[in-house]
Amino acid sequence: MYRLEFWYEFASTYSYPAAMRVEREALAAGVELRWRPFLLGPLFAELGWTTSPFNIQPDKGAYMWRDVARTCRRLDLPFVRPDPFPQNGLLAARIANALPDGAPRARFSRAVYRAEFADGAQIADPAVLADLLAGEGEDAPTLLAAASASETKQALRAATEQAKAHGIFGAPTWRCADGEIFWGNDRLEEALAWAVALG
Amino acid sequence: MYRLEFWYEFASTYSYPAAMRVEREALAAGVELRWRPFLLGPLFAELGWTTSPFNIQPDKGAYMWRDVARTCRRLDLPFVRPDPFPQNGLLAARIANALPDGAPRARFSRAVYRAEFADGAQIADPAVLADLLAGEGEDAPTLLAAASASETKQALRAATEQAKAHGIFGAPTWRCADGEIFWGNDRLEEALAWAVALG
Repeated sequence: MYRLEFWYEFASTYSYPAAMRVEREALAAGVELRWRPFLLGPLFAELGWTTSPFNIQPDKGAYMWRDVARTCRRLDLPFVRPDPFPQNGLLAARIANALPDGAPRARFSRAVYRAEFADGAQIADPAVLADLLAGEGEDAPTLLAAASASETKQALRAATEQAKAHGIFGAPTWRCADGEIFWGNDRLEEALAWAVALG
Repeated sequence: MYRLEFWYEFASTYSYPAAMRVEREALAAGVELRWRPFLLGPLFAELGWTTSPFNIQPDKGAYMWRDVARTCRRLDLPFVRPDPFPQNGLLAARIANALPDGAPRARFSRAVYRAEFADGAQIADPAVLADLLAGEGEDAPTLLAAASASETKQALRAATEQAKAHGIFGAPTWRCADGEIFWGNDRLEEALAWAVALG
């Protein structure tokens, strides 16, 4: 079975269209997907950045908002600009890490992206995340408790360190079984072709 | 006639595949192209950068070299990593500005990219550029003299300021007649479709 890892960060704008379309593209290509939530903040902090590079470079940021809006329009996805941007995705990433790596994690992650980028919800708010979990049929109180357990916090730290060790510097990043990485929603097709060619 | 501006910088890696394929793609789409050389250095300097962001962010840089190599392989283009990187494209950009905006500028620009990224030549070397000009049937001494005339220097400065005013922050950038911009070799198809849709 072909395999592909989807490394994503909840604050990342281009991770939203990626998350919404990856399952159908992976299924069509016969590729099994692993959802790998991580945090960009610690990687950015090592570069001396305290916010999104799109805020640090205003011209690039202005372009990104246009480009993501165009991308979503083409994919027929609703899109609103999160306010504030970036949203703090720490709790959502901990919950995603606490969920089984499979359909439950994928469903919750898509629900977070929809709340953030289609509905303009505040994804740092535990009540918002509890509603999303309940909407997916998960046990929200148990998962919120699991999210703040030290094992979960440590698992997310480890995932972020692993991302860095893999050479990941942004999101979404697609990682093939041989370690080849592809950065960006617009590289999904190339990544899938690479994963399939590996056999 | 549909129109598209191709804003490029000679040091830019992704501008190489863009330059090598844009004419056939634009022709196929029925879009008239304008070649607009400019400099990224002054724009980067405003952000406090003294070199390419790919040198400032080593993980991103390592990825870029893999990604550009993959892109060139897919397009059947030879590719070598320029050393040093980035090359200083100032003189080449002045010469390109001094050439008529049409086939002569496009031909010379492609020759510079080939020399830099296929042959590993030093494009800051006036002798290298003189050879390229001669190879394209241009009067090299006259153009080298024109390149250092104050009007040419001023024209390149004005182009770079215009790029900034257009919201351009990287290369290649495609700019449509309505001001819409698309950044990256991988956005050429979208930019052409936008230019055509404008009518």
